[in-house]
Amino acid sequence: MKILCLNCGGSSMKCQLIEMPGENTLAKADIDRMNTPQAILSYMVGDDKRLSQSVPEATFITGIEILMEKLKEDDIIAEDNGIDAIAHKLAHGAERFNKPTIIDEEVIEALERLYPLAPVHLPPAVKGIRACQKLLPAVPQFAVFETNFHQTLPPYAYIYGIPYEWYETYGIRKYGFHGTSHRYVTETAADLLGKDIKQLKMVSCHLGSGTSVAAVKYGKSVEISSGLTPQSGTIMSTRPGDFDPWVFPFAVEMTGMSVQEVSDTLVKRGGLLGISGVSGDMRDIQEAAAHGNERAQLALDVFCYHIKKYIGSFAAVMNGLDVLIFTGGIGEHSSGVRKKACDDMEFLGIKLDDDKNESVPVPHILSADNSQAVIMCVETNEELMVARQVYAIAQAGN
Amino acid sequence: MKILCLNCGGSSMKCQLIEMPGENTLAKADIDRMNTPQAILSYMVGDDKRLSQSVPEATFITGIEILMEKLKEDDIIAEDNGIDAIAHKLAHGAERFNKPTIIDEEVIEALERLYPLAPVHLPPAVKGIRACQKLLPAVPQFAVFETNFHQTLPPYAYIYGIPYEWYETYGIRKYGFHGTSHRYVTETAADLLGKDIKQLKMVSCHLGSGTSVAAVKYGKSVEISSGLTPQSGTIMSTRPGDFDPWVFPFAVEMTGMSVQEVSDTLVKRGGLLGISGVSGDMRDIQEAAAHGNERAQLALDVFCYHIKKYIGSFAAVMNGLDVLIFTGGIGEHSSGVRKKACDDMEFLGIKLDDDKNESVPVPHILSADNSQAVIMCVETNEELMVARQVYAIAQAGN
Repeated sequence: MKILCLNCGGSSMKCQLIEMPGENTLAKADIDRMNTPQAILSYMVGDDKRLSQSVPEATFITGIEILMEKLKEDDIIAEDNGIDAIAHKLAHGAERFNKPTIIDEEVIEALERLYPLAPVHLPPAVKGIRACQKLLPAVPQFAVFETNFHQTLPPYAYIYGIPYEWYETYGIRKYGFHGTSHRYVTETAADLLGKDIKQLKMVSCHLGSGTSVAAVKYGKSVEISSGLTPQSGTIMSTRPGDFDPWVFPFAVEMTGMSVQEVSDTLVKRGGLLGISGVSGDMRDIQEAAAHGNERAQLALDVFCYHIKKYIGSFAAVMNGLDVLIFTGGIGEHSSGVRKKACDDMEFLGIKLDDDKNESVPVPHILSADNSQAVIMCVETNEELMVARQVYAIAQAGN
Repeated sequence: MKILCLNCGGSSMKCQLIEMPGENTLAKADIDRMNTPQAILSYMVGDDKRLSQSVPEATFITGIEILMEKLKEDDIIAEDNGIDAIAHKLAHGAERFNKPTIIDEEVIEALERLYPLAPVHLPPAVKGIRACQKLLPAVPQFAVFETNFHQTLPPYAYIYGIPYEWYETYGIRKYGFHGTSHRYVTETAADLLGKDIKQLKMVSCHLGSGTSVAAVKYGKSVEISSGLTPQSGTIMSTRPGDFDPWVFPFAVEMTGMSVQEVSDTLVKRGGLLGISGVSGDMRDIQEAAAHGNERAQLALDVFCYHIKKYIGSFAAVMNGLDVLIFTGGIGEHSSGVRKKACDDMEFLGIKLDDDKNESVPVPHILSADNSQAVIMCVETNEELMVARQVYAIAQAGN
């Protein structure tokens, strides 16, 4: 079964064609700067980068057309009906979608009603669904949500201290994001350790341009740093993470900006970029800090400190910590961030081995022999997790 | 030295006359519902409630006049110059006031510039200062700030992931509140245990109609749940505590309310009241929950869960926990809340003794013999802490 995994964003489309149940990635394609003259397609078969090609003004429609053509040229799919399912990774499913779902008109309408919860992510995703309907009308489409994995949070963890009617009427609660990644790396880590996930208390740190920390107890998400939206929780590249919500009305009053302008400023000029004034890229931050830039050092400190606080909080929630996982671009590649986040945490049974932490191949174990918790680095694979879930539904449906 | 401690609020004035260095509370007076026909004065000498008297339309001026008269009648102060200092407990000192300060015109002007940070608390406090200037012009006045104790937080703990210029220009950062109480109970607990506070890692839970949790390492505040304003952190009586800040713009969009209306709703109809729909009083919540009210139970669960998460987070920050303190109306009197907050926390070395937890006299130790952390209940005394600080300045000045 060939599953085309799609992630349709505001200015990009990421695609992977995965053969199931073999979990074989047949091809990958990314189109960046869509709808502009600079639009560019990268296309890989296996680890072989076949091309990087200008595709001016590419839309989801033209992007998928070009991709299908390449796949046929390379004999990866058959001329007529080569794809068995399309899987869309969607940012927000609220409570309406608490599991992966086959897409029909009613689902699309429900997604449209969720736009206010994810105004940046959901509208282009629905456009991507429409494009697939048009080009590949016979292929069933599935939606897998970043929020799905966190639907197991207990009510006392997801209910905010706000008027309860706002929860009932507008769905205002904690949802949490990066669910696909947190689920993938916790399952993978348990497998690699040869342990039953149903026996493990795990904290998963997904550190990329978006970051979040999840508490996964016995295989189920019980806590997550992000909330109603993906910009809360730990600080991120340009997104602010947690702060006193009254910064919002205070900033509106002090700056004279509108609520929307304050929101845009916080999302685009907060986080590592906001604190450092240097960059939203952790590599730039680390380099600037190494060269004595104090605000870059402060941004790095805040980033690692947020992670540390969440680890402690979630160890308390689970009354224990067996496995601590780092994943995502920063989590997989920055030994410095891992070290800083784990430093002085022996009280929680966390002790890094500095040499192992510097070792490169992923996955690997980073904890010292006398560390109570196993500390691991695991490469995430959200598309594979999406494909697995869609494959499971398709099998169940047959 | 007789110090009159004043807490001048929007509709009330709380007064204590304390003799130093003996720490003897000579008299207490509260005026509630000020500036209304229902204004009422309660007046106590020692533990003896002398009177409860209607004082219609009482202002700070008339209130202080009446109080001075009573104190003279009862021979507590001399006819001419009975008060040596006036100490005002103020909600917010921002970074401008990082220690208790003698009040002069320049200080009053600086306080006025801080109004946007504490629009409910600071304006009446300054009115109270003006009233004292008028009635007792020869008596020196001092300001002690709820934020003072938390000025030892490291920058990575108080800087938010927002544009750094907003910190520099508008002072947007974490400040933290209840500093007077957290300082008092941590110092008192160390004394009661016969230990040097400079050796202890302590978490202090002040649970009242306002609640906050502080991390006090070696006698200094290193973390605090509340932030820019006192409504963030743990959920409280009617204040919401932590939530995804993007609830603000989302609620503005969905409800059609203004930013100010959303803010007012969250402050007055959030917290225990918001979740339960029953009451903002923990006693009502517990009773309703005991009678099967599910939302009251949920409010209780969220309240205790927030405390638990902060304890874990702060134990991680300090890499240890020696003493866990409960104080404030709920912290001192609700064994149920203490139990729920401490349940399933053995991983952090926290183990309550259920019998000791039910015992009534405060202060007392609640932890089981095999608990790694000492758990204590300590009665707070903010006025005494204020008087101590003012006495110390006055002595240093002589």
